[in-house]
Amino acid sequence: MDTRDILNRVKTGEISVEEAEAYFRKEPFEEMGFAKLDTHREIRSGYSEVVYCSGKSDEHLVKIFEKLYEKNGEVMGTRAAKEQYELVKEHCENVTYDPLSKILKIEKEKEKIGNIVVCSAGTADIPVAEEAAQTAEFFGNEVTRLYDVGVSGIHRLLSHLEEVQKANCVIAVAGMEGALASVVGGLVDVPVIAVPTSIGYGASFHGVAALLTMINSCANGIATVNIDNGYGAGYLASQINRLGERKR
Amino acid sequence: MDTRDILNRVKTGEISVEEAEAYFRKEPFEEMGFAKLDTHREIRSGYSEVVYCSGKSDEHLVKIFEKLYEKNGEVMGTRAAKEQYELVKEHCENVTYDPLSKILKIEKEKEKIGNIVVCSAGTADIPVAEEAAQTAEFFGNEVTRLYDVGVSGIHRLLSHLEEVQKANCVIAVAGMEGALASVVGGLVDVPVIAVPTSIGYGASFHGVAALLTMINSCANGIATVNIDNGYGAGYLASQINRLGERKR
Amino acid sequence: MDTRDILNRVKTGEISVEEAEAYFRKEPFEEMGFAKLDTHREIRSGYSEVVYCSGKSDEHLVKIFEKLYEKNGEVMGTRAAKEQYELVKEHCENVTYDPLSKILKIEKEKEKIGNIVVCSAGTADIPVAEEAAQTAEFFGNEVTRLYDVGVSGIHRLLSHLEEVQKANCVIAVAGMEGALASVVGGLVDVPVIAVPTSIGYGASFHGVAALLTMINSCANGIATVNIDNGYGAGYLASQINRLGERKR
Amino acid sequence: MDTRDILNRVKTGEISVEEAEAYFRKEPFEEMGFAKLDTHREIRSGYSEVVYCSGKSDEHLVKIFEKLYEKNGEVMGTRAAKEQYELVKEHCENVTYDPLSKILKIEKEKEKIGNIVVCSAGTADIPVAEEAAQTAEFFGNEVTRLYDVGVSGIHRLLSHLEEVQKANCVIAVAGMEGALASVVGGLVDVPVIAVPTSIGYGASFHGVAALLTMINSCANGIATVNIDNGYGAGYLASQINRLGERKR
Amino acid sequence: MDTRDILNRVKTGEISVEEAEAYFRKEPFEEMGFAKLDTHREIRSGYSEVVYCSGKSDEHLVKIFEKLYEKNGEVMGTRAAKEQYELVKEHCENVTYDPLSKILKIEKEKEKIGNIVVCSAGTADIPVAEEAAQTAEFFGNEVTRLYDVGVSGIHRLLSHLEEVQKANCVIAVAGMEGALASVVGGLVDVPVIAVPTSIGYGASFHGVAALLTMINSCANGIATVNIDNGYGAGYLASQINRLGERKR
Amino acid sequence: MDTRDILNRVKTGEISVEEAEAYFRKEPFEEMGFAKLDTHREIRSGYSEVVYCSGKSDEHLVKIFEKLYEKNGEVMGTRAAKEQYELVKEHCENVTYDPLSKILKIEKEKEKIGNIVVCSAGTADIPVAEEAAQTAEFFGNEVTRLYDVGVSGIHRLLSHLEEVQKANCVIAVAGMEGALASVVGGLVDVPVIAVPTSIGYGASFHGVAALLTMINSCANGIATVNIDNGYGAGYLASQINRLGERKR
Amino acid sequence: MDTRDILNRVKTGEISVEEAEAYFRKEPFEEMGFAKLDTHREIRSGYSEVVYCSGKSDEHLVKIFEKLYEKNGEVMGTRAAKEQYELVKEHCENVTYDPLSKILKIEKEKEKIGNIVVCSAGTADIPVAEEAAQTAEFFGNEVTRLYDVGVSGIHRLLSHLEEVQKANCVIAVAGMEGALASVVGGLVDVPVIAVPTSIGYGASFHGVAALLTMINSCANGIATVNIDNGYGAGYLASQINRLGERKR
Amino acid sequence: MDTRDILNRVKTGEISVEEAEAYFRKEPFEEMGFAKLDTHREIRSGYSEVVYCSGKSDEHLVKIFEKLYEKNGEVMGTRAAKEQYELVKEHCENVTYDPLSKILKIEKEKEKIGNIVVCSAGTADIPVAEEAAQTAEFFGNEVTRLYDVGVSGIHRLLSHLEEVQKANCVIAVAGMEGALASVVGGLVDVPVIAVPTSIGYGASFHGVAALLTMINSCANGIATVNIDNGYGAGYLASQINRLGERKR
Repeated sequence: MDTRDILNRVKTGEISVEEAEAYFRKEPFEEMGFAKLDTHREIRSGYSEVVYCSGKSDEHLVKIFEKLYEKNGEVMGTRAAKEQYELVKEHCENVTYDPLSKILKIEKEKEKIGNIVVCSAGTADIPVAEEAAQTAEFFGNEVTRLYDVGVSGIHRLLSHLEEVQKANCVIAVAGMEGALASVVGGLVDVPVIAVPTSIGYGASFHGVAALLTMINSCANGIATVNIDNGYGAGYLASQINRLGERKR
Repeated sequence: MDTRDILNRVKTGEISVEEAEAYFRKEPFEEMGFAKLDTHREIRSGYSEVVYCSGKSDEHLVKIFEKLYEKNGEVMGTRAAKEQYELVKEHCENVTYDPLSKILKIEKEKEKIGNIVVCSAGTADIPVAEEAAQTAEFFGNEVTRLYDVGVSGIHRLLSHLEEVQKANCVIAVAGMEGALASVVGGLVDVPVIAVPTSIGYGASFHGVAALLTMINSCANGIATVNIDNGYGAGYLASQINRLGERKR
Repeated sequence: MDTRDILNRVKTGEISVEEAEAYFRKEPFEEMGFAKLDTHREIRSGYSEVVYCSGKSDEHLVKIFEKLYEKNGEVMGTRAAKEQYELVKEHCENVTYDPLSKILKIEKEKEKIGNIVVCSAGTADIPVAEEAAQTAEFFGNEVTRLYDVGVSGIHRLLSHLEEVQKANCVIAVAGMEGALASVVGGLVDVPVIAVPTSIGYGASFHGVAALLTMINSCANGIATVNIDNGYGAGYLASQINRLGERKR
Repeated sequence: MDTRDILNRVKTGEISVEEAEAYFRKEPFEEMGFAKLDTHREIRSGYSEVVYCSGKSDEHLVKIFEKLYEKNGEVMGTRAAKEQYELVKEHCENVTYDPLSKILKIEKEKEKIGNIVVCSAGTADIPVAEEAAQTAEFFGNEVTRLYDVGVSGIHRLLSHLEEVQKANCVIAVAGMEGALASVVGGLVDVPVIAVPTSIGYGASFHGVAALLTMINSCANGIATVNIDNGYGAGYLASQINRLGERKR
Repeated sequence: MDTRDILNRVKTGEISVEEAEAYFRKEPFEEMGFAKLDTHREIRSGYSEVVYCSGKSDEHLVKIFEKLYEKNGEVMGTRAAKEQYELVKEHCENVTYDPLSKILKIEKEKEKIGNIVVCSAGTADIPVAEEAAQTAEFFGNEVTRLYDVGVSGIHRLLSHLEEVQKANCVIAVAGMEGALASVVGGLVDVPVIAVPTSIGYGASFHGVAALLTMINSCANGIATVNIDNGYGAGYLASQINRLGERKR
Repeated sequence: MDTRDILNRVKTGEISVEEAEAYFRKEPFEEMGFAKLDTHREIRSGYSEVVYCSGKSDEHLVKIFEKLYEKNGEVMGTRAAKEQYELVKEHCENVTYDPLSKILKIEKEKEKIGNIVVCSAGTADIPVAEEAAQTAEFFGNEVTRLYDVGVSGIHRLLSHLEEVQKANCVIAVAGMEGALASVVGGLVDVPVIAVPTSIGYGASFHGVAALLTMINSCANGIATVNIDNGYGAGYLASQINRLGERKR
Repeated sequence: MDTRDILNRVKTGEISVEEAEAYFRKEPFEEMGFAKLDTHREIRSGYSEVVYCSGKSDEHLVKIFEKLYEKNGEVMGTRAAKEQYELVKEHCENVTYDPLSKILKIEKEKEKIGNIVVCSAGTADIPVAEEAAQTAEFFGNEVTRLYDVGVSGIHRLLSHLEEVQKANCVIAVAGMEGALASVVGGLVDVPVIAVPTSIGYGASFHGVAALLTMINSCANGIATVNIDNGYGAGYLASQINRLGERKR
Repeated sequence: MDTRDILNRVKTGEISVEEAEAYFRKEPFEEMGFAKLDTHREIRSGYSEVVYCSGKSDEHLVKIFEKLYEKNGEVMGTRAAKEQYELVKEHCENVTYDPLSKILKIEKEKEKIGNIVVCSAGTADIPVAEEAAQTAEFFGNEVTRLYDVGVSGIHRLLSHLEEVQKANCVIAVAGMEGALASVVGGLVDVPVIAVPTSIGYGASFHGVAALLTMINSCANGIATVNIDNGYGAGYLASQINRLGERKR
């Protein structure tokens, strides 16, 4: 129902001035006092709101979880502590928790589309890679994992070239110097989402070195997200994969 | 022709050992002494190689331009100085130059697909926005431009909401504090490619402030590229738009 | 009593040379050995001295609290730990503590003037926003709170536009990329005090990204204070609101 | 005319649906193709739009100057080069130029209100101080200048204490280590707008050292703006002074 | 005994070739396996070696303390934990510990010379100021302390002007924006040793803001040392005061 | 067996197409699910893979340790916690642990070649120096240690000049300002590997100051590795020493 | 004449109230409109004011030069361009200019005291070293120059050890990694003033690497000044040398 | 002739005390007033001193060139401007200049040893790569060049794998994100000298991004030198190659 519809209905008396005015004012979010839950979000973006658990008070976390589950029939939280899992479990049945990715969720069965490849440079980057992979899966995407394929042993990546080249989108997760994204970018013709991780020491500056590498990549088609932002990469990959799969 | 094919043909004697060996060795690039032109690139990525003109010697620039034009029937160069345009014009007919975006090209007619929206925050960001827009057009994409829609007068962006929401991908170009990307990201359900520009003064640090804003965006689906990297944004948007348009 | 008065009185013998000399030497502060309490401060600035509790030794904290309470009939401390509250409670009746803003105070009833709006981008920014809001209230200002109105869902802020536009001064509290200040700045005609928070991860650098955003804002009328400095924002807003309300 | 008015008139047939729709769509800016001039700005903020001249093309600069002059009867440009002055002079009579502050303007006579004090630490900071002072004057404020009163000779500032303490707002402009703002902040009970300048050498990092000093000031009531942002300081001071003067 | 002496004695047979060779080779330090104690140091510099306790293993700390005490009849350690004090106390009688400055020492009676003034901006800077003051006292200097005289209440410093102006050297200790050093530098005609402290929050970056302020000071005669380096300031002040006092 | 061999054998039927294809595909690493162990590494580089223990899960650490020990008859881990030593000891006999260097290993007897000198500036740099020294020894190199020879007492280094000048390669380990590398570089004619350490305080920024010193060294032949990267220095020194010793 | 004197004279009628008041108000500087010349400075500090020429307008420069020459019978300017020399020469006889140090001056004959040694690491650091040396000479100090004695050839410094050890104060000027200060600091028992220079390339960051080296020096008694601040070093050395020489 | 020799000769009267003393004092450098030429350097390091031309005055440059040529029969200068070449040509016959590497030299014929491979990532990195390559050749090493083999087209490097693996040492020159070094490091068993270049834009920060990549490399055996320091890389490679070749 757009502006012109509303106006026409006012004119014909179908709706009152007050109703029309209410329409223009209606908030597309749920006011919870401490937060404004974006319940129109799934309509707007196709993906329901996800909860960033870290730092939420117990009371708020439970209320938000319950509200979103009630609205959407499923709910996902990122960066959840084990204690938060145990808390939520007391209120919501069927909630599951993965200590590696720190994802807490109640998930509906759904069909998966397309293909997203998630690569990690080292084993220490896997928690971030899993956050990306599981986010993409929650949003209904097929995911292929290729871990420990960093550039210091380039043969490990090259031996999986075919799988990498079949994806609609590749997520490259790397700490230390973060060179993986550039090499992957040179091997595929689809967007590469580069996720720097805070893995490293000394002058890696908690992921800044890897972030700079990715932002300055000599390869084309590299989209960089924030350090350790597996969730953001999974979200972005979902948007891209969805575009690629709508065609079929 | 894959590995197994080659091997089968060797076995049947269809090709000699030497021919097969040559195949495995053949370089998918043209050795020019000073450079290795990636002439297989269009096959691999769907987009032909683009020349970064800035800093190239006159002799090299002309040779590369001629070689790529000969191969692909068209050629594009970025960050070209006016003097480089005049130089190339002496050797290649039909070359055109846009002093705003600094793009130098000979372009074939081609059908455009899909829709990419390019927004700029201020008028000073337009050169980078145009580099992005013209790159996307060169690669065969339909582009809509929305310039001077920065967040300090949010009504300018909101009045074009409908156009923004119809794109397969939005490019948000902004200097100073770079807040445009976050606002756009909250309004659309497709990837937003954020391009920080070096426009600004004082503590903008030639684009670093805008880059940090974009990398840290509170909105989902933001893909950041390097400062002033209009070309990179145009390339990435082309990959995404192509995915979205294959469906039709 | 100014310089000329003193001199005249010396001349007339009304006061002795020693008394005059003492006058020129008199310290407008209370020497406590370890600190020089600025007890003239309320006279100079209209606001009594506030205690920064973090890191104070128990003994010093109690002494300062008691001294200021005795002088002013009320006293406020910022960044107080729960343990400090419990300690002070043993010595001062009527002391209250808010664990969210970490403000510890004994407050007199007072009339509130004018209107200051405090906005926060996310729920995680609320502790800093509350430090600002409660500081302003302690200094006698009327405060309106608008929390969780970040730019990734711009409709949440726009739905409260009227309230924002009625203030004498707006405080915008935001972490991550801190874009809220720029958007608010474009919507009002009064000063906006921008408070970056250390909320965020990765390349937010504990508030530096938000600080740079605010300092580089494309909007006019943005006054930036230090990261997490809710107290400073509340103080500055009080000064501005007082100017605006004197008129009535 | 607000939303309810429009709706009522539609109902009564006073205006057509199309007219109402046009109203909702009407852009409060003037589309110039390359820019969206914010001509409603004076209504919204009380101050007309100011032109940032640096980097504008000749054609754009002249058009914008003429358009704003036509709308507002006066116009101001900042960071104008001498060549831009000569260009504009050919098209607009009465335009004046100050090579120190680089301000280019046609100014109406107007009454000045209140009082803003502008201090500079050194003589090299004067261009930025003048940009602030002249901006404030253009917006209708009385300005007192105190230049070369840096803290390495604290008596220079103290000898003007009375003037400083009478202002509604003080602007402190300083490069090098920028300590002036802290000292001024301790002497007055009104907001101090701190403007770091890029004056200095070595580890001053073009104003970053001064910016950090001001952001971290131990004094209360310090509002920091961007490096060399005299215009921003003048604008903010105007907003504050106006609040202070409305009372009278 | 210089080179020529040695050679002459070799020639006259007063000492053997082996003895002379030994002389050229003799290490002016005591090899302890894990460390090379600089026992010639007092001869070279007039001040005995001081132990940086933080991070030393228990065994090493005790051995070094005992060795230096044996050599010099006194010994001082900086950055000592309370546990280290308790440990050393078991092995060395007469050892004292100050929990504020974290100095651990056995000190001989000695006459004090000259005068060094140690100022601190706030009460939180006192631990660093005390490290400086006690170091200078250990090295035989008279010290005057002026604490909590930061520039946000400039009258507190000005009321002690006479004491400050009588020193041979002033140490200015300040965190946050560190402006104290510039103001002191403008008031005296002797070297000011500026010590930035890590006190502050947000963009103070653990003392970097104060360090930059001091390095960029607009006042002359400012010598900056490392963040929180009270010991270094005390040492340097001792060297300067000694030069000033030799005259008498 | 190179490409031509394979092809010839296919042609003669000596091996089947499938076997040849397998050969081209064979992964030179051991897939462990969570990691890809580079078991071909000793063949390629002459040094077996070393385990970075920090952050490894207990299960993974034990499996990798056992697998590498089985393959190579020896195994080394760096940055191991004491708890990890106790864990591994339960599964592998003969494992030893050095709490200073945090190296955990089972080591075969081997002959040592050549000579590498490892210098440290202070005693606090010894843990990093030991990581370097023990890594080099594990890889079969003779190592000479010279600790506590920092430049503030240059005679300590000069008294060992002869030993330093006999090495094939010198490792200089230093924190704080890291000047040792430059001085050593001026005294020898072989590569100096500079290792900045995170030892220091204040503006040493956890090793960044030392890293910059080493990267900017005015001496020739300085090779810098990451902060605290004793292992990397030991590895690089081993490669260099091996080159120097092959000659004999 | 101190406060008590004034008051006594008022009392006795020796001076009038107005005169006394004037005394308290009298500005110890000369108001020039654009600047406040600190003409009392020589009385306060023993050194006359020095002009920082860079960036001064022609008119201001000449006026200041003439005024200071008139007051003090001599005058010195730093960072003067050759054009400024030619300009000043037209107005002041006897002015001399050194293109290396960029010092412009008219200097009285004066006796020199004490001894300051100025060392430079490389030949490229000489301009800064000369600014320091000539400043110290202008202020009446004896200076010994030791240039090109950087630590990559430590024998060059050691061969001048005796001269270095006789100074009251040593200035160590170095770019690149700036290690000279640490080595000098270990060789002398007087203050070492460390001057980082902007000489270097790559990661020297225009002197930041050298600055960090000096601030973090492992040697005692190092006083650091700003990058390229030869003048500041010369001033500080003069203060120190004066203290040392008063004794004789 | 060592210390003992000298002493023995003194004892036997073979040399006088004065001669011995002279020996201990003799400077192993040539004092030129403005510089101390390290003429003993070839004896110490095997490589003669090289002139850093940039910024040298004409007179100094010519004198140094002539002196070194006279001593060594050859001479090399780096970072020479074309004007410097023309200047030197007037004084020294046979001098040659390469505008790409900016190397100016008179070179003796010499036999080359071993093999160093110099790789560059892009064509823009070639000037730095050539500085490295020609330095190594001047010092007597065989060099193989592999240019334009960056990781965005990894096949270009892999097609030259055999040549890379035969070297004693590989120099990897790369700007932008600098990932080349990590990939090369994973392919060879000899030291890789990583040279970041200032090529790049935006957040490459003139080589800092590449420098961080190389310092943080996940590959072993990477030795990093300063940004654009081709000379340093060539020198270091020469030392390493010499070690490797002495064996033959």
